[in-house]
Amino acid sequence: MLQRKIREELRSIVGEDGFFVDPEDLASYSYDAFVREFMPDAVILPRSTEEVSGIMKVAYREGIKIVARGAGTNLSGNAVAREGGMIMSFTRMNRIVEIDTRNRCAVVQPGVVNLDLQKEVMKMGFFYPPDPASMAVCTIGGNVALNAGGPRAVKYGVTRDYVMGLEVVLADGEIIRTGGKTVKNVSGYDLTRLLVGSEGTLGIVTEAVLRLIPLPRARKTLLAVFSSVEEVAETVSAILAAGIVPATLELMDRVIIDVIRDVGGASFPPNAAAVLLIEVDGDNESVEKQGNQIAAFCRERGAVQVETAKTQEEAERLWQARRSVAGAIYKVTPSLLVEDAVVPVSELPTIIRKIGDLSKQYNIKVGVLAHAGDGNLHPDIMTDVRNKEEMARVEKFIREMYEEVIALGGTLSGEHGIGIGKEKYMSLEFSRRTLDLMRGIKKVFDPKNILNPGSFLCER
Amino acid sequence: MLQRKIREELRSIVGEDGFFVDPEDLASYSYDAFVREFMPDAVILPRSTEEVSGIMKVAYREGIKIVARGAGTNLSGNAVAREGGMIMSFTRMNRIVEIDTRNRCAVVQPGVVNLDLQKEVMKMGFFYPPDPASMAVCTIGGNVALNAGGPRAVKYGVTRDYVMGLEVVLADGEIIRTGGKTVKNVSGYDLTRLLVGSEGTLGIVTEAVLRLIPLPRARKTLLAVFSSVEEVAETVSAILAAGIVPATLELMDRVIIDVIRDVGGASFPPNAAAVLLIEVDGDNESVEKQGNQIAAFCRERGAVQVETAKTQEEAERLWQARRSVAGAIYKVTPSLLVEDAVVPVSELPTIIRKIGDLSKQYNIKVGVLAHAGDGNLHPDIMTDVRNKEEMARVEKFIREMYEEVIALGGTLSGEHGIGIGKEKYMSLEFSRRTLDLMRGIKKVFDPKNILNPGSFLCER
Repeated sequence: MLQRKIREELRSIVGEDGFFVDPEDLASYSYDAFVREFMPDAVILPRSTEEVSGIMKVAYREGIKIVARGAGTNLSGNAVAREGGMIMSFTRMNRIVEIDTRNRCAVVQPGVVNLDLQKEVMKMGFFYPPDPASMAVCTIGGNVALNAGGPRAVKYGVTRDYVMGLEVVLADGEIIRTGGKTVKNVSGYDLTRLLVGSEGTLGIVTEAVLRLIPLPRARKTLLAVFSSVEEVAETVSAILAAGIVPATLELMDRVIIDVIRDVGGASFPPNAAAVLLIEVDGDNESVEKQGNQIAAFCRERGAVQVETAKTQEEAERLWQARRSVAGAIYKVTPSLLVEDAVVPVSELPTIIRKIGDLSKQYNIKVGVLAHAGDGNLHPDIMTDVRNKEEMARVEKFIREMYEEVIALGGTLSGEHGIGIGKEKYMSLEFSRRTLDLMRGIKKVFDPKNILNPGSFLCER
Repeated sequence: MLQRKIREELRSIVGEDGFFVDPEDLASYSYDAFVREFMPDAVILPRSTEEVSGIMKVAYREGIKIVARGAGTNLSGNAVAREGGMIMSFTRMNRIVEIDTRNRCAVVQPGVVNLDLQKEVMKMGFFYPPDPASMAVCTIGGNVALNAGGPRAVKYGVTRDYVMGLEVVLADGEIIRTGGKTVKNVSGYDLTRLLVGSEGTLGIVTEAVLRLIPLPRARKTLLAVFSSVEEVAETVSAILAAGIVPATLELMDRVIIDVIRDVGGASFPPNAAAVLLIEVDGDNESVEKQGNQIAAFCRERGAVQVETAKTQEEAERLWQARRSVAGAIYKVTPSLLVEDAVVPVSELPTIIRKIGDLSKQYNIKVGVLAHAGDGNLHPDIMTDVRNKEEMARVEKFIREMYEEVIALGGTLSGEHGIGIGKEKYMSLEFSRRTLDLMRGIKKVFDPKNILNPGSFLCER
């Protein structure tokens, strides 16, 4: 609970309509796409960098914990006040400040919705590739905080690869700038990329300079059905070995295919064990040629069905199965836990097989979606979080799965972040010393530990 | 001077042939491509990560300063023992440990020569793009420490964009690993990219996992001569706006052109004020098409001469002028100071004009080479470092030039690093607070300040 005097002070910075303490106003900030139980003490909505700075000066002086929040779509519990304190929401800082065509970059406030930016720059012939599944809702501030990726990462990389510079308000309210409108920069430590993916623990991003690239002129979508995951892995290897880097290589395993078929979402052959959705982009001639090559690779490696979209509508239809997965799953199960891990791409068949074995062992239903070109997989656990006995088995399954991921040389998060859900597994991935280094960095930026203070990156 | 007992201890780690203290042995480690005056107390040549760890344990215990050194080709004075202590050279850790075609990466020791790696992976159809000018000699360890770039950066990025993981020996000898054989990774702070470009101040890199991409099947080289830098800038804008990202866009200004012509290096038309060397790569059809488009853009924007190479030999001839610059300059002047800065690409004509004005004002001869696609420029100051009066003017010129770079929204180093030469300008680019944050990070990694302890990143 904030003292009255402090409430007045904060209200004077952001105005009457920018500060809330009533429970009914706070309720919609008590959850994100991962957790739903942390009621903040207050919510504040700054309109400018100066206001953010003013708020942080008060917060620093008074030791008020601050969690920055975009659209709350993250899957790691990073947008809630898990230790109480104040949520800082960026809905009123949602301007595209500038699209600088000559320097091929956009300057945006943190509250800008990812897809809005994509559409704006597209009008001018540019492309902003990072495409998290929530792109229609999620914001650039959240994308930067979690280093968001998406299906296009295999060709285009993730948010980190597009952030050229940041304006950041530090824990004590001081404003710094990192990077700028230049791609090349080796002056000092790379603070820009240290801040990207730092889960709100090092500073509050109030502006980002984002790199834009030329918009590909054409794209081609294919869907191939295989009778084993191994065949998919071999096909992906063949595609990449031929020098083709598709913009998307999305894999769905047998469990997912069966769920989609069961709810009448799409029809796949009965022996379908893996579906690969492939998209190439570039100029007209090359996508045509690459599309044909890929279709041939699929058939040579045993695909039982290969479809190539001839029109935009056909492409949409091919995407439909992939996009319908979450909806289909919720029709067959009360709860869905979406996990996130990365293995070296060669280990994808191994980890999918292992997940199958573990799910049998613990008697739980798990399907796998994967960005097959970069080894990033999302095991979808279909369960009922109210069933304690089952959840105990789920817990064991998850731990053993992540142990296997690490044993295969992988990492525990490809694009969702660590947040609340995964902090207990961090000792699998990081040595004590590595954690100490990270926590040392956190302390340099935030000595009073007021920025997202529940994070595993904080000293405990 | 190291005590006898410590010398014995170090020698016992690396063997008789891996430890030197005699002045004649040390002399060749007293300089790099930037400075030539710092005699180390000792030179040590480890053969393995374990030996590096053993050496660092001794160094940490005894407070011995350590500077890691690759080939010493850096242009910033980062490979010398500026505060005394020991040089750690990686000539005996020069193995390509693995080329993992399935995961499209190479695992290498720090002493591997950049071009050797490029050639090896090329045999297997892969491409390692970072191409510093010294690539025939410089090593991956140095490339990582300085985040080396090169002409191809406009399309392919710099070293940072290819480092997936590192093995690092910390100041006290503990070994940590960051990242791995996965491209996607958002677990914790991005220590990998914090270490890249950290100029040897945070840890000793003993192994790097480097991302490989498919080798482009074809390339096309063009050379265009313009009568003004503005025409070049417009041409570059037109090329990029058409969605073509050349692998190389190298600019030479009038001063450089005149020097090359004066020494008989190549013949350019008398009104040549700027030369643009362009290379596109990709598949056969697209490079052919893009080559034609680019030639048309050049002519439309006023090029007085456009040549397109039809064979590899012709391409080599077009590159010849660019490659001959340093040699030509040394024929007309005793000393060459190669500066390095980046401006937003739209400001390239402005900074080149400003450099022309300043060089007249201070009566010194300065040519400009630039990677015109990314705004990274190298002012080449032709002078005589023995002439104190002229050097005082050069000093003033450099400071005013860098002030202008910052005023234009640029950065003081694109690919050479800060090291000794540029530390005095760091307050132009960074606020006191930003410097404090960087120095705080340095202290977390290296509390005794024994790693490259002269750097501006160390607390003073």
